[in-house]
Amino acid sequence: MKAPNPEFEAVVRESFGRQTFMSALGAKVERVAPGEVDISVPFNPGYSQQNGFLHAGVITSIADSACGYSALSMAPPAHDVLAVEFKINLLRPATSPSFLACAKVVRAGRTLTVAMAEVFGITGSQRVLVATMMSTVIARPIPG
Amino acid sequence: MKAPNPEFEAVVRESFGRQTFMSALGAKVERVAPGEVDISVPFNPGYSQQNGFLHAGVITSIADSACGYSALSMAPPAHDVLAVEFKINLLRPATSPSFLACAKVVRAGRTLTVAMAEVFGITGSQRVLVATMMSTVIARPIPG
Amino acid sequence: MKAPNPEFEAVVRESFGRQTFMSALGAKVERVAPGEVDISVPFNPGYSQQNGFLHAGVITSIADSACGYSALSMAPPAHDVLAVEFKINLLRPATSPSFLACAKVVRAGRTLTVAMAEVFGITGSQRVLVATMMSTVIARPIPG
Amino acid sequence: MKAPNPEFEAVVRESFGRQTFMSALGAKVERVAPGEVDISVPFNPGYSQQNGFLHAGVITSIADSACGYSALSMAPPAHDVLAVEFKINLLRPATSPSFLACAKVVRAGRTLTVAMAEVFGITGSQRVLVATMMSTVIARPIPG
Repeated sequence: MKAPNPEFEAVVRESFGRQTFMSALGAKVERVAPGEVDISVPFNPGYSQQNGFLHAGVITSIADSACGYSALSMAPPAHDVLAVEFKINLLRPATSPSFLACAKVVRAGRTLTVAMAEVFGITGSQRVLVATMMSTVIARPIPG
Repeated sequence: MKAPNPEFEAVVRESFGRQTFMSALGAKVERVAPGEVDISVPFNPGYSQQNGFLHAGVITSIADSACGYSALSMAPPAHDVLAVEFKINLLRPATSPSFLACAKVVRAGRTLTVAMAEVFGITGSQRVLVATMMSTVIARPIPG
Repeated sequence: MKAPNPEFEAVVRESFGRQTFMSALGAKVERVAPGEVDISVPFNPGYSQQNGFLHAGVITSIADSACGYSALSMAPPAHDVLAVEFKINLLRPATSPSFLACAKVVRAGRTLTVAMAEVFGITGSQRVLVATMMSTVIARPIPG
Repeated sequence: MKAPNPEFEAVVRESFGRQTFMSALGAKVERVAPGEVDISVPFNPGYSQQNGFLHAGVITSIADSACGYSALSMAPPAHDVLAVEFKINLLRPATSPSFLACAKVVRAGRTLTVAMAEVFGITGSQRVLVATMMSTVIARPIPG
């Protein structure tokens, strides 16, 4: 894919920097390419579900942000993005030391962009797929 | 609906109490009835997306927990639940002072339960619908 | 809800009349109100899945059309609608003599409308819920 | 992937042969491999939506069957499968002379299997992606 905005990486990283929730989760942007964004998050016992696994909401949050930013990387200058909807399948318990959400754009339209994400549990050099997301994102000109 | 476990409310509240992520978000169980659970969360500027709205991941997290616990309220004794998958539509920006996810079971099966949730933004006595979720939950006997 | 186009019912019925697939399935528009459309389909052994139940694709097709037309009933004059995406939960085998998809708009926006549908199996005066759908629909001015 | 049942292809083709709806649509199984099934359908003006495109319900039906049969190809002997739920994103109008749904298993579990499908519009040697599906399928022993 070719990004319509040559500043796509700076745009993504600047917007991500304003997502205080990502910072609260300890999430980081690991990679930005045209139509592709990877976001990591460490396991945190303070963010667990009832059995001590990482809460599905954390896995979902980084997958959602990764999908949104993969869409933003393909948006024209001076645009912002918002998730319209998404669906996630939770495939395995989230017990790894860290997690990586890898999102990529499936179809970039003028108004709507569809992105998918895979979330992997990472233990050393091993990866196991823990979730997959399909998301619809809307791009809008930034007012002003 | 009639809960198969007369202790359903205690079971839900005890499990919720172990979800450290809910506590980190400031989320609270507001109501438990057979097949219905409401969970609230306050707006928190530390949990925002890029424009200062509450991050969709927070809205999703309380809706996911509410769906899971509505399913747990209809599970037999000594069972636990896990979300298999869910889909959420984000209808309006999450700008209210607080939010309430109201989940209810649509179909309780032996293995799988389907639940839906509406998430409302709450400002004083006013409610506005900000998201709707459809979720599939699996119930499993607790090993032991 | 108040339909922005007073001709909403005629618009829905005329468009439905052009859906040759609905006619092939034996589907009928049973009711049109602002933001609400019901579509029925009879059981047909020629449209079954492997066990002789009505194929999930048929249930899905009438739910999809009902959601789309509930959105069209709330669109301005000279607009058409297209489903962007939908999710369906199949709750029970489709074994009834006929089925009714009841869709209603959850949120009508300028560009995107979110609708939900319940599909019931109908046996005489009895209804049983067999599926629920959540759908995102885009409205566009008709060119020309 | 390794299919637990060496007869997986015969099982899939035999079950597909009982889906009268697939036959009514003109759908065919084009390929069966462990965890992967492709199903084609021709464009048919008798199965259109309001603008003469192939109805989304037809695209969805072959994607649903392909996902279900990719799961069946990985099921133990004497099991049947049923779709629990699915989500589809419709990316482009379905105007091609024929369509191919390519499904593959993402995660095969004991009870639940998650599959994804891409549906392509086919014109000669050209393929364009028109839809993507994510589906949850349940496997059950055949009674008797």
